[in-house]
Amino acid sequence: MSSTNRLIYLPLGGAGEIGMNAYVYGYGPKGKERLILVDIGVTFPHMDGTPGVDLIFADIAWLEERRDRLEAIFITHAHEDHVGALGHLWSRLNAPVYARPFTANHAARKMEEQGNDPANVNVTQPWPNRVQAGPFEVAFLPVSHSIPESAGLVIDTPAGRIVHTGDFKLDVTPVLGDPFDRALWAEVAKPGVKVLTCDSTNVFSPNPGRSESTVGPAIRQLVERASGMVVATTFASNIARVKTLAEAGRDAGRAVCLMGRAMRRMIEAGVQSGILDDFPKTISPEEAQAMNRDQLMLIVTGSQGERRAASAQLARGKYMGLTMAEGDLFLFSSKTIPGNEREVLRIVNAFSEMGVDVVDDDADLYHVSGHANRPDLATIHQIVRPQAVVPMHGEHRHLREHVKLAAENGLPGILAPNGTMLDLTGDTPRVAEFVETGRTYLDGSVQIGALDGVVRDRMRMAMNGQVTVTFIIDEEDEPLGEPWVEIMGLPEKGRSNAPLSDVLEADLDQFVRRADDKTLADDDKIEEAMRRIVRQSAMNEIGKRPEVSVIVSRLSA
Amino acid sequence: MSSTNRLIYLPLGGAGEIGMNAYVYGYGPKGKERLILVDIGVTFPHMDGTPGVDLIFADIAWLEERRDRLEAIFITHAHEDHVGALGHLWSRLNAPVYARPFTANHAARKMEEQGNDPANVNVTQPWPNRVQAGPFEVAFLPVSHSIPESAGLVIDTPAGRIVHTGDFKLDVTPVLGDPFDRALWAEVAKPGVKVLTCDSTNVFSPNPGRSESTVGPAIRQLVERASGMVVATTFASNIARVKTLAEAGRDAGRAVCLMGRAMRRMIEAGVQSGILDDFPKTISPEEAQAMNRDQLMLIVTGSQGERRAASAQLARGKYMGLTMAEGDLFLFSSKTIPGNEREVLRIVNAFSEMGVDVVDDDADLYHVSGHANRPDLATIHQIVRPQAVVPMHGEHRHLREHVKLAAENGLPGILAPNGTMLDLTGDTPRVAEFVETGRTYLDGSVQIGALDGVVRDRMRMAMNGQVTVTFIIDEEDEPLGEPWVEIMGLPEKGRSNAPLSDVLEADLDQFVRRADDKTLADDDKIEEAMRRIVRQSAMNEIGKRPEVSVIVSRLSA
Repeated sequence: MSSTNRLIYLPLGGAGEIGMNAYVYGYGPKGKERLILVDIGVTFPHMDGTPGVDLIFADIAWLEERRDRLEAIFITHAHEDHVGALGHLWSRLNAPVYARPFTANHAARKMEEQGNDPANVNVTQPWPNRVQAGPFEVAFLPVSHSIPESAGLVIDTPAGRIVHTGDFKLDVTPVLGDPFDRALWAEVAKPGVKVLTCDSTNVFSPNPGRSESTVGPAIRQLVERASGMVVATTFASNIARVKTLAEAGRDAGRAVCLMGRAMRRMIEAGVQSGILDDFPKTISPEEAQAMNRDQLMLIVTGSQGERRAASAQLARGKYMGLTMAEGDLFLFSSKTIPGNEREVLRIVNAFSEMGVDVVDDDADLYHVSGHANRPDLATIHQIVRPQAVVPMHGEHRHLREHVKLAAENGLPGILAPNGTMLDLTGDTPRVAEFVETGRTYLDGSVQIGALDGVVRDRMRMAMNGQVTVTFIIDEEDEPLGEPWVEIMGLPEKGRSNAPLSDVLEADLDQFVRRADDKTLADDDKIEEAMRRIVRQSAMNEIGKRPEVSVIVSRLSA
Repeated sequence: MSSTNRLIYLPLGGAGEIGMNAYVYGYGPKGKERLILVDIGVTFPHMDGTPGVDLIFADIAWLEERRDRLEAIFITHAHEDHVGALGHLWSRLNAPVYARPFTANHAARKMEEQGNDPANVNVTQPWPNRVQAGPFEVAFLPVSHSIPESAGLVIDTPAGRIVHTGDFKLDVTPVLGDPFDRALWAEVAKPGVKVLTCDSTNVFSPNPGRSESTVGPAIRQLVERASGMVVATTFASNIARVKTLAEAGRDAGRAVCLMGRAMRRMIEAGVQSGILDDFPKTISPEEAQAMNRDQLMLIVTGSQGERRAASAQLARGKYMGLTMAEGDLFLFSSKTIPGNEREVLRIVNAFSEMGVDVVDDDADLYHVSGHANRPDLATIHQIVRPQAVVPMHGEHRHLREHVKLAAENGLPGILAPNGTMLDLTGDTPRVAEFVETGRTYLDGSVQIGALDGVVRDRMRMAMNGQVTVTFIIDEEDEPLGEPWVEIMGLPEKGRSNAPLSDVLEADLDQFVRRADDKTLADDDKIEEAMRRIVRQSAMNEIGKRPEVSVIVSRLSA
């Protein structure tokens, strides 16, 4: 009976952060909905909250438990926060993947890298072509963004049409890839749209967004005027920008060299998938070494100050045999993502010490955003005229503001952060239930839960240092020698100017000498007492309470 | 013979970062100069580079070795990056301290807190009053900044006059404290100035700075229109701003409550030192609990998202019995210092989840900087007309840009980052030598060198996790039991799905069984082998190479 079917929406990631996008839609009887997943991305770790972690994914446990109901995975575009987790998580979901050619190229590589069959990725042509996935009919709707072949999704369901924007901007002259096509979006909207699930990234940017094509002249002028070597960085995936930079170099009579694996790979993928046919000729780093500085332009990875990327390596000294020198120019054709400031400024200051002139986006000349600004969001609201707006792709503050913006345009909006399952069936979306969501860390080769305590323990060691006590007890429950202390990440000496380990060992030894037989027979008691003694003794001596491990070895009779 | 005397400048901190200011001047025969120190501040640690560290100071070893030649310490103003290290480092320098009354109030407290006699702090009246310090005559020259009673220093030496700006802006209506007095600065400059040592913080800000008095109307309007509780944060030391906020609250009919220790302390110091006589009446947090939300305005600490400050605690739930609620307003009357974005945004999003409206300084309405912008720096160059400009108080990029700015104004500038000793004796400053400088960490109660490796070890544990192996060998060099593994900060299971510690112990045990007598007799060999085995085995199992401690306990015969 169709009246018992419902249409649901559940963000597992991306609605509460900018990153790790993972949105579920479902249709069917309650608890038996057939499901599709839109995007499966990563977010990046930071030393200050996730030290040693390699990547962060949305926790997909909810979906994994229902994988028999998962019809398909759709990838809107090839940015890491939309496709980066595919290879790592696909085997837990095991559903066909659909994407446009350039995106599919990346998705297939992600699959291969993690040992999954890339044939599970289906190359899909855009609207009006449709993919049938259970009760859903899904079409890729071309839209402009900062990477080629981005798409919104038109998701037709028995309960009505959903438009899921993906990441987008309203760029009619995007240099490369699909311009924003207002008529096409209006055509899609015409039959009526139930819900617009909409990018919220730039809801706080008050002015209309600028086109990718506006940065060309300023970049060209800057490169023309440079006297030393020119080095520019941007997101490797912003192929249009890389092309603009390369053309500026070529036209200023410079040889162009792409540096950094991601940079070369993206351009290759662009050529392979047929979207990039007239990229300027490039030279290899080896050839670049032989050139005069004023005849050279490097385009490098690392616009966010990533430690291992080309820009950071150049800032530390040498990369692929090339070094920066006084009079060179370094251009950030990019914006620093909030949170990456320290890393980026470290590079800027290192270049400053070398006498390199650094130009960044402070004046808004050399970069434009790939996301729709506040007035652009209002425009898309008006073109699509949905029954309701569901903001996604934003921190909580963005989602909340986007709901307000929708209201300003007379549209009901609903705030649905990660884990909020919406029932979209009726005239207005309503919250159906709250699902437990979270984050999964890729730590080395292991996936661990954010709340498993592993990273918390590492942070505690980083904050407090670590003391390990070893203590041997013989067959008769008598101490064999004295407790032994090993300290890690703590000052060698404190108040008394004696080695910290000696002070701790003396206090522990005193405890052992005074301990009665009952205590010495009980490992738990020993451990508890020793931990307390070490923490208190360290507090007196160095003003810190370290993490303490006590290892009692009991020789068996 | 006076011709062999020289005038030197040596930044130990502050020229290469914004923070931990410590500038040395000297006059006398080479290597026997009599010295003064200007400012002795802190910089703040971050989890991503200095986990567990409490404060960061400039390494003053160079000055400590020459403390018999140190005549005095001058503190320009009461910001932590100028006075914060005084109490911690004073006993290593042991020289009289001079400061204007409000600053001296803080300096004396810093001394007392660390067990030093506050009587070493001399309350000093400003220009034309002078302090004799060996060959130096030093006067405090009032100047506007974001804290009351800021001062530049007029340092007269036998080789000429130096003007050391301290932190400053050109504010003729600063709400509280000294307005910028162009005539006074011109008077000081009249006899000729050899060197202008000058604040560089805002050299990249292209527009003239705005007065503190410009934020009042916007703040007033915002508070008047608010319907729920209003909570505002700013730097506690910006007493003028705190006063503006409090007056806006009072005038909107709200009771004002100051929250956070630093906030209450600063206002007390302002009243004590006589610079703040008409601050609105405040109520206690207990009284605030009894008020209606729309009759209440809190002014709280924590504008930079500091974990323990009032704003972060409100974001996590409750502070002093008060909580935020839907419809409340939270105002950041402050700028986020680069590097603190993640912490601040965490708070903003937490408030968003509570339904609190957050207003920040994006629109430049509710905050102005305390530092001179680029055109203001040009103005001070022109008023002082020094023979040379020495940029200070900035990262390397700021200092370098400031030298360029000086050149634009026809003034020779010289880049002197931390450790660069300048000889100022001649017509143009020149580099005399490079002195080894660095950072000292306050870690608990211990001062450790940044390069001592303590924090590096902590970061390694945070990145890689920690494995401790204990292994007991008996009197005959035979293993007593099997090696025992304790893991910290690592996933419990990896590839083989067996507990990681079991896998490591099995591999270690295999090594022990195969080890020959010579190996078992040699602790170093055992440790090296076991470390290698653990790292390799963990790499196979979990894709990480942990830090490893091996503790071999050898029972003595």
